[in-house]
Amino acid sequence: MKRREFLTIGSAGALAAGMTLTGCNQNKQSGDSTPAASAAAAKPAETIQWKMVTTWPKNFPGLGTGANNIARYAEELSNGRLKIEVYGAGEIVPALEVFDAVRAGTAQMGHGGAYYWQGKIPAAPFFTSIPFGLTADEMNSWLYYGDGLKLWEETYAPFGVIPQPAGNTGVQMGGWFRKPIETLADFKGLKMRMPGIGGEVLRRLGVTVVNTPGGELFQALNDGTIDAAEWVGPYNDLAFGFYRAAKYYYAPGWQEPGSTMEAIINKKAYEALPTDLQHIVKAACRMANADMLSELTARNNESLKTLINDHGVQLRYFSPEILSALKSTTKTVMEELAAKDATAQKVYASVMAFLADVRPWTDLSTQSFLAARDGQAKS
Amino acid sequence: MKRREFLTIGSAGALAAGMTLTGCNQNKQSGDSTPAASAAAAKPAETIQWKMVTTWPKNFPGLGTGANNIARYAEELSNGRLKIEVYGAGEIVPALEVFDAVRAGTAQMGHGGAYYWQGKIPAAPFFTSIPFGLTADEMNSWLYYGDGLKLWEETYAPFGVIPQPAGNTGVQMGGWFRKPIETLADFKGLKMRMPGIGGEVLRRLGVTVVNTPGGELFQALNDGTIDAAEWVGPYNDLAFGFYRAAKYYYAPGWQEPGSTMEAIINKKAYEALPTDLQHIVKAACRMANADMLSELTARNNESLKTLINDHGVQLRYFSPEILSALKSTTKTVMEELAAKDATAQKVYASVMAFLADVRPWTDLSTQSFLAARDGQAKS
Repeated sequence: MKRREFLTIGSAGALAAGMTLTGCNQNKQSGDSTPAASAAAAKPAETIQWKMVTTWPKNFPGLGTGANNIARYAEELSNGRLKIEVYGAGEIVPALEVFDAVRAGTAQMGHGGAYYWQGKIPAAPFFTSIPFGLTADEMNSWLYYGDGLKLWEETYAPFGVIPQPAGNTGVQMGGWFRKPIETLADFKGLKMRMPGIGGEVLRRLGVTVVNTPGGELFQALNDGTIDAAEWVGPYNDLAFGFYRAAKYYYAPGWQEPGSTMEAIINKKAYEALPTDLQHIVKAACRMANADMLSELTARNNESLKTLINDHGVQLRYFSPEILSALKSTTKTVMEELAAKDATAQKVYASVMAFLADVRPWTDLSTQSFLAARDGQAKS
Repeated sequence: MKRREFLTIGSAGALAAGMTLTGCNQNKQSGDSTPAASAAAAKPAETIQWKMVTTWPKNFPGLGTGANNIARYAEELSNGRLKIEVYGAGEIVPALEVFDAVRAGTAQMGHGGAYYWQGKIPAAPFFTSIPFGLTADEMNSWLYYGDGLKLWEETYAPFGVIPQPAGNTGVQMGGWFRKPIETLADFKGLKMRMPGIGGEVLRRLGVTVVNTPGGELFQALNDGTIDAAEWVGPYNDLAFGFYRAAKYYYAPGWQEPGSTMEAIINKKAYEALPTDLQHIVKAACRMANADMLSELTARNNESLKTLINDHGVQLRYFSPEILSALKSTTKTVMEELAAKDATAQKVYASVMAFLADVRPWTDLSTQSFLAARDGQAKS
């Protein structure tokens, strides 16, 4: 039954996917599921109108605005020949039906995270982020200059869907806790919201993992229904006001060190585009991919200061004992996940080989520089 | 005289700018200095032909290929309406005349690094990288979501030139040394190739700083004319064969932690473009900016393995004593540089304010994650 429980947690998705907007209009587009080609034909020849469904609430900071950026870039670069209308979760389809909507051509594009589709595609989470895995810079290197994007395209090809990296959150935070977590024993019986692979790792360490939707998270943490919650990072977490319900904010976000968000494109719709518009769609995704990390880096700084200086949040680091247990449990969970099918195994092997290659260089460059900047030194 | 010497070192540029290709054809384009508008008029209305002059040897790995990427993206996105021909250093103008060529409209675009123009624009190096300054991710955040790009545009505006971030090397290496550098005393009398601000810092610590052109570097290091040399990182350094002349390879590259390469655009040529092509030029730069870091991350990994496993290179870290002296000397040098004019002062203040903001977040996220991934923990 463990595998089934795992699947349930995994397929319910992470981050904001569980969240639905109050007041969203499920019927706004009812009956309007025109595929790309005929939608284009119904308009003047020079304007192609696409829909992008997303797993985010409309205009959700950093993530939903990343989807908006793709639409803006596509319109600017195409001189208005390609217009992409962005829909929030629940406006055309619920968050977790985004993949199927793009697959079916209900929408030509989608924006979200590959790990949401783990239930139907075991390899999918490897294209978002894995615990103790690749950072944002390393993910981009694996995707664009390693085998990453090629494997991702192969993985989605049977569904008639083309993936593109389209945003990265950078290293997330490890969560908000009402009490300090000092030893592994403090995890036992703790009720925590943590989706995905990270949640499964915690479950095996004795945490009662729940998947409270984002919109209910603050209330659950505040009234003690849950003891802890992981969300994203300072910018998004500040907006939700978690600091009012829990004072201990833990680093690092071992569970998601550099989550790639995805754009997905209906293959038939893509192939119906003239070549330059095909390039423009991918360019828009590529710019949005880099943008999100830059934006979140800037916003997280500001928000971190506010959390500490104005709200008295206590920053804490997980202890070596805890990190070591999280790491070894991660390995077990990942290997079980990879064993699910041949594609997952192949993608997992590729990520781990790239990680083994890149780690010495990242340590020598980024890590030793950051230490030197802080007046420490490696030896 | 110190300031004058400093200027000489600074304006001679860093990295590969000093390198010229043997056999390059200085006359290839002689007499052909048509400005953008008339060049466009001479072609069919739908095709605009631009020239991009660069500070790199043609197709120089990682950096010159970054310039090629911009041209390719612009052509793809514009469906061939904008064609940019890329020229290596010395083909139309020498490396260090790229800025003036774009300013004059001899070429519509250029690709290189802002710090090459320090002689005429004291603020320029702040837009590339400063010792102990911002990493690649932090630079992008400052440029796009802080004041960075706005200040850069203001700084270049009097020259009729528009800057765009167009590549990042990531953290570089600290250089190749024929003997270990264990204490500050080992710097005294050392003859080392190190351009720019880093070179000035070393000079003040007793190093005889030389600015050997790239093409002569290996020979100079091999025959003992110089004792040490800084170039870029494993990928570019391996290609030059430095490991055959010096066995000690030092980290971190304190002097250039995330060097932004620049594209520069002649303002009149830019303004003569239709709006969508203006967007396309900037989009091409924006993609190239992210690309270079991803490519160099992948290539540096592979090259680092080769250097260590196949060539017996000894990796070393600078000691805390040395890093501390480099850091305090950097502060003095930077403040002198910033004092040169009001713009430099303003830009320096902006970089340092952003650094103060971003450091706690980078430490909490990237740095604490990298430590955890390696089985260490912060507290």
